[in-house]
Amino acid sequence: MRSNFYPGPSKIYPQVAGYFQEAMESGILERNHRSKAFQELFSDTKILLKSKLNIPLDYEIVMVSSATECWEIIAQSFIQHKSYHFFNGAFGEKWCNYTRKIHPKAEAISFGLEENPSFQSVDKKAELLGFTHNETSNGTAISEQFQEEVRVKFPESLIAYDATSSMAGYEFNWELGDIWYASVQKCFGLPAGMALMVVSPKALDMAKKIDENEHYNSFNFILRNALNNQTHHTPNIANFYLLNRLMQNVENISAIHHNLKKRKEQFCKELSKLENLSSLIHSNVFQSDTVFCLSGEIEVIKKIKQQADNEGIILGNGYGKWKENTIRIANFPAIPNQHYKDLINFLLRF
Amino acid sequence: MRSNFYPGPSKIYPQVAGYFQEAMESGILERNHRSKAFQELFSDTKILLKSKLNIPLDYEIVMVSSATECWEIIAQSFIQHKSYHFFNGAFGEKWCNYTRKIHPKAEAISFGLEENPSFQSVDKKAELLGFTHNETSNGTAISEQFQEEVRVKFPESLIAYDATSSMAGYEFNWELGDIWYASVQKCFGLPAGMALMVVSPKALDMAKKIDENEHYNSFNFILRNALNNQTHHTPNIANFYLLNRLMQNVENISAIHHNLKKRKEQFCKELSKLENLSSLIHSNVFQSDTVFCLSGEIEVIKKIKQQADNEGIILGNGYGKWKENTIRIANFPAIPNQHYKDLINFLLRF
Repeated sequence: MRSNFYPGPSKIYPQVAGYFQEAMESGILERNHRSKAFQELFSDTKILLKSKLNIPLDYEIVMVSSATECWEIIAQSFIQHKSYHFFNGAFGEKWCNYTRKIHPKAEAISFGLEENPSFQSVDKKAELLGFTHNETSNGTAISEQFQEEVRVKFPESLIAYDATSSMAGYEFNWELGDIWYASVQKCFGLPAGMALMVVSPKALDMAKKIDENEHYNSFNFILRNALNNQTHHTPNIANFYLLNRLMQNVENISAIHHNLKKRKEQFCKELSKLENLSSLIHSNVFQSDTVFCLSGEIEVIKKIKQQADNEGIILGNGYGKWKENTIRIANFPAIPNQHYKDLINFLLRF
Repeated sequence: MRSNFYPGPSKIYPQVAGYFQEAMESGILERNHRSKAFQELFSDTKILLKSKLNIPLDYEIVMVSSATECWEIIAQSFIQHKSYHFFNGAFGEKWCNYTRKIHPKAEAISFGLEENPSFQSVDKKAELLGFTHNETSNGTAISEQFQEEVRVKFPESLIAYDATSSMAGYEFNWELGDIWYASVQKCFGLPAGMALMVVSPKALDMAKKIDENEHYNSFNFILRNALNNQTHHTPNIANFYLLNRLMQNVENISAIHHNLKKRKEQFCKELSKLENLSSLIHSNVFQSDTVFCLSGEIEVIKKIKQQADNEGIILGNGYGKWKENTIRIANFPAIPNQHYKDLINFLLRF
């Protein structure tokens, strides 16, 4: 058995190898990215994404190279002066720091692991509020209830969600955010090298108004290409094809998220039997459905990691300030249920 | 027969399907890009590239998402005020225009199809001179003799070459340039979604001196990661693997370029028999070894394209101002000799 619970790059759907073979045979990988063949692939992929992930029809989907690039694109094209970035972990903080390079006034608002962000110091007319929907470094997620509060409290602001390790795992209420982005090497179960941005009409209007056109990846330029089913540079065509074939075959996101929640419940139930490990996040309200963070004594964590490695089980290392005393376990759709059963059996031995 | 002469994305080596399968089985696509497994892959790939392409050991290699991104990286990290961009076709002009968005003073110097660029208006202490080594839109290339002249005339400047459709096809004298970049969907014969920058010690020093760190893809940040065999964002790991396996198996660039030149000679000889088509570029000095541009009456070109399409032969459309009266034919290493024989037979029928 080789099982992989790393929260990104992570377990890839096994059918991807066959899809790649198909792509080679079809010739699409050798076709120009301005050709009709590519345009049809892109158009079809957007239709499938909207259908399988229940994305509103008036939202646009654009493709870029990585979620990290999305940080840059948002800073360039959706912010003029100042944004607010709320975080309780390493990836949210990184987003803020990357934004600050371009907009030094970008404001960092940190909050605790089991609490919601506070809006005390936030301007009601904030340009953009950025949240990490699912913080991969500690296994917390922003609840839908809180997302609703944000939308009501800041009717004029753009609301952006880093959904890197939740998109294609969570069933989102997309209308609660204006910009959602994710890379495909997590819940999509695909090889790394591509990211998606899902953008509301309100955000499209704002980008148009800001009219930023200085960069090769200025959002308006990316969008103009995407509306024509093209990309702003020669893209990772293989991943377009793989995403397309995968979206044809996965269940609707509603069923996927339901299954992940069920698996999480079972996993947590079993977890409560363990003596040396516990969830870093206790409240169900703040606990992610797609990334679990288990904490224990540094020595125990070390031993588990070592033993897992010996047995061909790939666990996620702790990250940032939880590097030494946690392990991370992805609950991504591509991982079979049997692997979780095996994992529990493995953990019960400690 | 399906043959593909499109100059990018273009013919892929058939063994790529097997390499991808191997990558899936090895698990590397599911490994974190900060893991030892990925670092070894990256390190090994750089060693292979240097060995097979005869790149000087003191040059550094970094990986990004596309050659278009290289335009942005160079503008951001290697230019402070003003660069000069020499072009005789659409891609060189695009590079200049992309640079101008960031540095409005970037100077455009155009030149004729069968002549060398002129330096009349160029400051001897120019920060950076940018050339398109191989202009994919018209099938011209910058001769090595001219490259030597530039190096001698501008000892203080950085010299950058867009080698998008020549790297891995041409045997370069790398020391005649400081920044060489290319994407992998042309002479490398790989699926699109990755680009390389090959950078001289002089350019590394200059980037350090300029000390630009504002972007997620600031060169210094990319380099710091690359020196540690990591990347600045989660990369297209599949393409790293494919490139690695391919570099293990290709001949040295010296042999590859020799074969391409031989094939070009044969092709041109046969071409001279054609009544309705001739090379857009007549002088061997300016003619590319990797992209041929054939011109003819608009009606003839239309008919050839139509008939080629019917017979499953993919020819490159004309580009930019040569859109209607030319076709483009890649002479890339992944295309088998037999396909050229078939192509000639096809063309002889007109």
